[in-house]
Amino acid sequence: MIEPILTKTPLQRADFLDNAAGNRFWIKRDDLLPFSFGGNKVRIGLAFLEDCLKKGCDAMIIYGDRRSNLCRVLSALCASVGIECLMVSTDAEEDTGGFMPMNERMIRTLGVRILSCAKDRIADTVDEAFRTLEEEGKKAYYIYGNRLGEGNEHTAVSAYVKACTELLEQEALLNAPIQYVYTACGTGSTLSGLAAGLCEGRSEAQVTGISISSRSDERAKMCVEKAVRSWYESQGRGVPERLWEHLRLETRYNCGGYGVPDRRVQELIDHVFRVSSIPLDPTYTGKAMRGMLDDLERRGVRDSNVLFLHTGGTPLYFDTLARDSE
Amino acid sequence: MIEPILTKTPLQRADFLDNAAGNRFWIKRDDLLPFSFGGNKVRIGLAFLEDCLKKGCDAMIIYGDRRSNLCRVLSALCASVGIECLMVSTDAEEDTGGFMPMNERMIRTLGVRILSCAKDRIADTVDEAFRTLEEEGKKAYYIYGNRLGEGNEHTAVSAYVKACTELLEQEALLNAPIQYVYTACGTGSTLSGLAAGLCEGRSEAQVTGISISSRSDERAKMCVEKAVRSWYESQGRGVPERLWEHLRLETRYNCGGYGVPDRRVQELIDHVFRVSSIPLDPTYTGKAMRGMLDDLERRGVRDSNVLFLHTGGTPLYFDTLARDSE
Repeated sequence: MIEPILTKTPLQRADFLDNAAGNRFWIKRDDLLPFSFGGNKVRIGLAFLEDCLKKGCDAMIIYGDRRSNLCRVLSALCASVGIECLMVSTDAEEDTGGFMPMNERMIRTLGVRILSCAKDRIADTVDEAFRTLEEEGKKAYYIYGNRLGEGNEHTAVSAYVKACTELLEQEALLNAPIQYVYTACGTGSTLSGLAAGLCEGRSEAQVTGISISSRSDERAKMCVEKAVRSWYESQGRGVPERLWEHLRLETRYNCGGYGVPDRRVQELIDHVFRVSSIPLDPTYTGKAMRGMLDDLERRGVRDSNVLFLHTGGTPLYFDTLARDSE
Repeated sequence: MIEPILTKTPLQRADFLDNAAGNRFWIKRDDLLPFSFGGNKVRIGLAFLEDCLKKGCDAMIIYGDRRSNLCRVLSALCASVGIECLMVSTDAEEDTGGFMPMNERMIRTLGVRILSCAKDRIADTVDEAFRTLEEEGKKAYYIYGNRLGEGNEHTAVSAYVKACTELLEQEALLNAPIQYVYTACGTGSTLSGLAAGLCEGRSEAQVTGISISSRSDERAKMCVEKAVRSWYESQGRGVPERLWEHLRLETRYNCGGYGVPDRRVQELIDHVFRVSSIPLDPTYTGKAMRGMLDDLERRGVRDSNVLFLHTGGTPLYFDTLARDSE
């Protein structure tokens, strides 16, 4: 099961994004990771699964809302190795208008037991999940660490530190050093992993996360800093000063918050699909790509090589297609 | 646009299919071709597009029903190079119960003009499409040749003749010569291409097409023979006798006809998704894989290396998910 997951994803030249400012674009197609419809969560989910098995656990507790890409991937990973998976779930932040998201459909198909709870009852419900599995004689692994969701940040971060080795090898073949890297930023694991991995690989690229959530500027930055520190801590080292110099988080392009739709984002999604067949979704990748283009323009970046990490979410593309095209 | 399409697809060991008879399985993951959600139609569509451009045409006429993977891919290819695309469409053979298939949704999103017609009006509607485009000053290319859909069989076949080079290179690395190859068979282009490509590559593998359509045994075989002959004709050669010796078409596993659902097929789809996250659909790949397993058992094949070509159809997987999981 693990072998095909490790296939390299294409680093695709995206000349359809090139603009009058002379910037040249590439897309790292992590949406094409060959497991469970791809996405950054495949790399991250695999890191969690490896950690889970290494710790001798035979059950996994996951957490997320009903549209969660991570929960879909983890459900699929657990099913594929035959370990129990229990999901603690809050309702979607975005109103799904009675439509059941594709990710939830798949999670249910895979037979994952779901414990629904309110936002202020997560820790208690995680406790309940541990108890349930313990009673069944299982040793459970909670992906986020302790009941408060702390202590395992570095595992998620490590996935993209590792991915940077692949990315830098591909960059070396381009004959065009990447100067700017952009990615969607939710919890910050992917952004932190990119920042650490590029820093460790001596890249001079500046990494920018486009926040797609409702988090305040301060809280979003705190999340990312914590994640970065946790990975270096797990390596027994401090964070190099040059990492902070190359890392940015932009919260101004979230279009009002998590899942809030935006006309310019949808227009970009339609355009990109038309010219390249690359699927983007309105919550993560579409918003992040719109933010990237706006950010480059606002800052007057010219004649540069820019990389966009496509973090996947193909089921979310089909959610939009199923809801909006009739 | 074309570069990433040519990425090799994984040849994945599928030990979850291994059985007591000692057969070992591999899946050629053409569902992962990195354009428009993949599938064999990406290779075939690209062959049509190249032929279209080579002939100096600047518009394409396509034909299929509303769930057609080929029409979705061709719509995406035409949009990506900016040429007009006009679709002649009959209703789906399978009753879709008022549900608009994902492929149709995407085709509409891409702005393809659709000319609907009854099954006995296809040739007239193709004529109409040619006239419409001519009046707009366009030189049109009809993917199937003349108004009766004849004369271009070899172009589709050539795609899988070419793909066999990739397949045989991968097989050489396996240290396990493939003895049986299976694929879904509709019109027969993919099966014919595999048969010709493997024969040209001096493979000893036997290639079996599992018919998923309502075609009679006689008519299905005629289609495949015609396709094989057309490719060799395009090469100025006759068909080698040994090709026929290695080619089989089985119509007994179509479960009653095109799109007819089947409980054992659905159970296999659920099982495969659970253990491997590989999506299959009930019309093509699910039925073909069920047919492969039944065929091997019926014939008493033992201790052999077997390859299943995954011909894609991811949007059809989401069709089933959207319709059946609520």
